[in-house]
Amino acid sequence: MALIVVGTMAYDAIETPFGKTDKIVGGSATYVAYAASNFVTPVQQISIVGNDFDEAIMADLKARGVMTEGVVRVKDKPSFFWSGRYHMDMNSRDTLVTDLNVLADFDPHVPEAYQGADFLMLGNLMPKLQMQVIDEMRVRPKLIVLDTMNFWMDIAMDDLKAVLKKVDVLMVNDSEARQLTGEYSIVKAAKTILTMGPKYLIIKKGEHGALLFHENHVFYAPALPLEDVFDPTGAGDTFAGGFMGHLAKTKDISFNNMKTAIIVGSAMASFCVEKFGPERLQEITRADIDNRIQEFVNLVQFDIDLV
Amino acid sequence: MALIVVGTMAYDAIETPFGKTDKIVGGSATYVAYAASNFVTPVQQISIVGNDFDEAIMADLKARGVMTEGVVRVKDKPSFFWSGRYHMDMNSRDTLVTDLNVLADFDPHVPEAYQGADFLMLGNLMPKLQMQVIDEMRVRPKLIVLDTMNFWMDIAMDDLKAVLKKVDVLMVNDSEARQLTGEYSIVKAAKTILTMGPKYLIIKKGEHGALLFHENHVFYAPALPLEDVFDPTGAGDTFAGGFMGHLAKTKDISFNNMKTAIIVGSAMASFCVEKFGPERLQEITRADIDNRIQEFVNLVQFDIDLV
Repeated sequence: MALIVVGTMAYDAIETPFGKTDKIVGGSATYVAYAASNFVTPVQQISIVGNDFDEAIMADLKARGVMTEGVVRVKDKPSFFWSGRYHMDMNSRDTLVTDLNVLADFDPHVPEAYQGADFLMLGNLMPKLQMQVIDEMRVRPKLIVLDTMNFWMDIAMDDLKAVLKKVDVLMVNDSEARQLTGEYSIVKAAKTILTMGPKYLIIKKGEHGALLFHENHVFYAPALPLEDVFDPTGAGDTFAGGFMGHLAKTKDISFNNMKTAIIVGSAMASFCVEKFGPERLQEITRADIDNRIQEFVNLVQFDIDLV
Repeated sequence: MALIVVGTMAYDAIETPFGKTDKIVGGSATYVAYAASNFVTPVQQISIVGNDFDEAIMADLKARGVMTEGVVRVKDKPSFFWSGRYHMDMNSRDTLVTDLNVLADFDPHVPEAYQGADFLMLGNLMPKLQMQVIDEMRVRPKLIVLDTMNFWMDIAMDDLKAVLKKVDVLMVNDSEARQLTGEYSIVKAAKTILTMGPKYLIIKKGEHGALLFHENHVFYAPALPLEDVFDPTGAGDTFAGGFMGHLAKTKDISFNNMKTAIIVGSAMASFCVEKFGPERLQEITRADIDNRIQEFVNLVQFDIDLV
């Protein structure tokens, strides 16, 4: 079952209370690919990079079953670059630099070899470009998942609302869910979003876990309490990659299996934050992943027979 | 299995974004008793009230199996009174009025009829008074649980640290755990607290659920996502009451049973916030409680066989 991933492949420079990096590889599609390729191949990447993008990263991804026919390499510009500084709570951050570079020219197209993919992950991107990819798919994928952010709600709300009508699952954080609906209550916001197109809504709450809403059902996945969150960059995209990877691997898009997929995504995200950038994702093994998922089982299981 | 509850029985006047009350009954021991008495009797109350305390509330509690020999009634003063206004997020609030009244004279003693109780819940109170009750127990209860707050860390940290050495379980919220230890990371704070006396630590995170720490184990209980949190006053004490009630009912103080007890406490707290004060706790039935606990099971259960 192929999974198409649309998003950025880029460079970040990150400051956290625990340290500071030079330019390191980042981008939503990079994190999704690293996470998802543990579960399903091929992962079919649609992105744009500049003349500075490390060929070794591209080769590493290819070795993991990631197809890069859909990644345009621009010869005369650098890759998208973002720099930010996280606050002590690791939930808020200041953007220091945003250099669009090649991203200003991103015009995503679906390569012929990708047509027929069953799963489509639209990483956080201008809503018009997300729509363009959906429109280019000759057969609608079985599951389309969209990530977005407050920035697009500020400047392109109508485009965002249009693309929301075409997707199955929306992933946002709690403040984005509030901004999208004008509802303070997360439950009311969820009910409203489920009338805007998506049949499933995932609300990411960082260290407080994630919620999955569908019809009148709700599922609460915890986050693993970690001694140190070293760098939260990419955690949401890694979550998305684990989520999509599990669904594509199991070929089951039921609500019940989405609950499991959220646990898998949460487990992958818990690795991501342990080191800067995607470094930890590059080194973990299948056994590491299985052990981490078992930690999530232990974290939430309780015996209610006694009540 | 008797449960002794030490704490305030008082009046509150509450403002939330959803409404405002006149003086209504409140106090930590009131909420604990309403919650715990669904699971275990007798609940043996130690508190102090003034000449204004409603006899009908005392009679209602007695009818639920709450003993009030340990509740001193002062004839010439009113009950402790607190007034506060909650912010939109319902996690933060401003105190408008604190009238200690009878609470200034609170000198808690354990009535003879309460000696031999196996469970002791020390509600949020001056640490010296919590210590006094422990010292008066001729046989140490099997489980002593202590609730406290940042106020006592500000003005009576040494007393608090002394009483912590004598208890089995500490209940605090996340910011209190940070203040108590000087550690920002909740996991590091938990590790430090588990060296200060308590063998178990419960960190209450409001709408984000609760964590239970013991040795190197951790359990994450979600909070039920609610459409409206009407009034959070007493939710923490109601949680404590459900927690203690379940443990006392099942006579099992293992880590495994504490996980279940936290779910029971969370279920009780989810009722508490649905109306002002203890009103909702006064009207729920055993069937309501069972249904709510089942909602928690549905909220977190997932099938991991597919991974």
